[in-house]
Amino acid sequence: MRRAVVLLSGGLDSATVLAGAVRDGFEAHALTVRYGQRHAVEVERAAELAGSLGAASHRVVLVDLAFPGGSALTDPSIPVPVPDRERAIGSAVPVTYVPARNTVLLAVALAWAETIGARDLFLGVNAVDYSGYPDCRPAFLDAFEALAASATRAGAAGERFRVHAPLLRMSKKEIVLRATDLGVPVGRTISCYDPGPGGLPCRRCEACVLRARGFREAGLADPAVMEAAP
Amino acid sequence: MRRAVVLLSGGLDSATVLAGAVRDGFEAHALTVRYGQRHAVEVERAAELAGSLGAASHRVVLVDLAFPGGSALTDPSIPVPVPDRERAIGSAVPVTYVPARNTVLLAVALAWAETIGARDLFLGVNAVDYSGYPDCRPAFLDAFEALAASATRAGAAGERFRVHAPLLRMSKKEIVLRATDLGVPVGRTISCYDPGPGGLPCRRCEACVLRARGFREAGLADPAVMEAAP
Repeated sequence: MRRAVVLLSGGLDSATVLAGAVRDGFEAHALTVRYGQRHAVEVERAAELAGSLGAASHRVVLVDLAFPGGSALTDPSIPVPVPDRERAIGSAVPVTYVPARNTVLLAVALAWAETIGARDLFLGVNAVDYSGYPDCRPAFLDAFEALAASATRAGAAGERFRVHAPLLRMSKKEIVLRATDLGVPVGRTISCYDPGPGGLPCRRCEACVLRARGFREAGLADPAVMEAAP
Repeated sequence: MRRAVVLLSGGLDSATVLAGAVRDGFEAHALTVRYGQRHAVEVERAAELAGSLGAASHRVVLVDLAFPGGSALTDPSIPVPVPDRERAIGSAVPVTYVPARNTVLLAVALAWAETIGARDLFLGVNAVDYSGYPDCRPAFLDAFEALAASATRAGAAGERFRVHAPLLRMSKKEIVLRATDLGVPVGRTISCYDPGPGGLPCRRCEACVLRARGFREAGLADPAVMEAAP
């Protein structure tokens, strides 16, 4: 059974990736990074999802990415923006961008992977219905794979690390359908950048807007929103 | 004045790099990562050195790299090895290798650099008198520079990040001479992997052995060892 490290945020996308890796036969070790995100309730849901989706293990690791500031996701003084039109999302890098976040997440995943003998890294980035983050693009993933080959003892010995981003070219609609197909408890995933008590989605931030569009186009109701409705 | 982020461990090499960046006119922002290393006294010395060497600012950031285990530098149950011959050093990746460490350090440096408008990253890796770590080689640095271009908002906008490793091709002797030339308080730097109280070097680990050879070949006494002598 091949081992893999799966980055698991507690959101819909990474939960779908974890479920897919398990279904594809990987011994999937889930890694959640607590990096100072304001939506820390994600981390609690990640632990729950790792268990329900069949991860072989789950680790929560602390990395201070709040210290540079400048992102609405890590700096409480910067409000999470409310997009005024769906089509504006993705046209520029928004203030919810966390500098070099996916580089740091993959670097920590690589450290763990090398230690436990995993050569496959999974993450839930998406370059279709997304917010315009540079580190969600195919070129970034290719560059990280190239880096991993020279950055590690295993790579120096000729072994290859692979970065899997199975949702990369899927629309949110397709992700919703895939999550449902894989039996992901979508009502327990949190996409919202600024959730209320208990993880209730705000229904206004770009992540909520993109998620709502995905469910609408899939012809499905979002249990997370229904449960949050008054 | 160009801004730079300089990774500063508190060791001789990174202190020399910081001093060189300051002399070359950079507004140098020093970054120390507390990653779970057993030689945490390094971090205290880093703060002292940042001040004495003229860093514009200094930040200490927490990143848990001890969690994967497997390295003598982060796992107290694994003893720091004592090489039996100098020439054996570097012939294989030793147990002091911390998986993907330099990838993580550079990723955090990149996050800070992007936020403060720095496009130059400095680190003190060395590929001559070194321990055989894969992430100290030129190919790794080139791969990281390529990654930075696709991983960041600034890179996506066409700006270029540069990774500077000015000691890369220097011998330890040359580094000792350069440190002295730059006025680095070498007696306050800590290279030892397993220092005693107050940062006293063990004089037996591979880092101590390489450092001692550098001073010997430079024809200089190491003030850190002299102060540690009984």
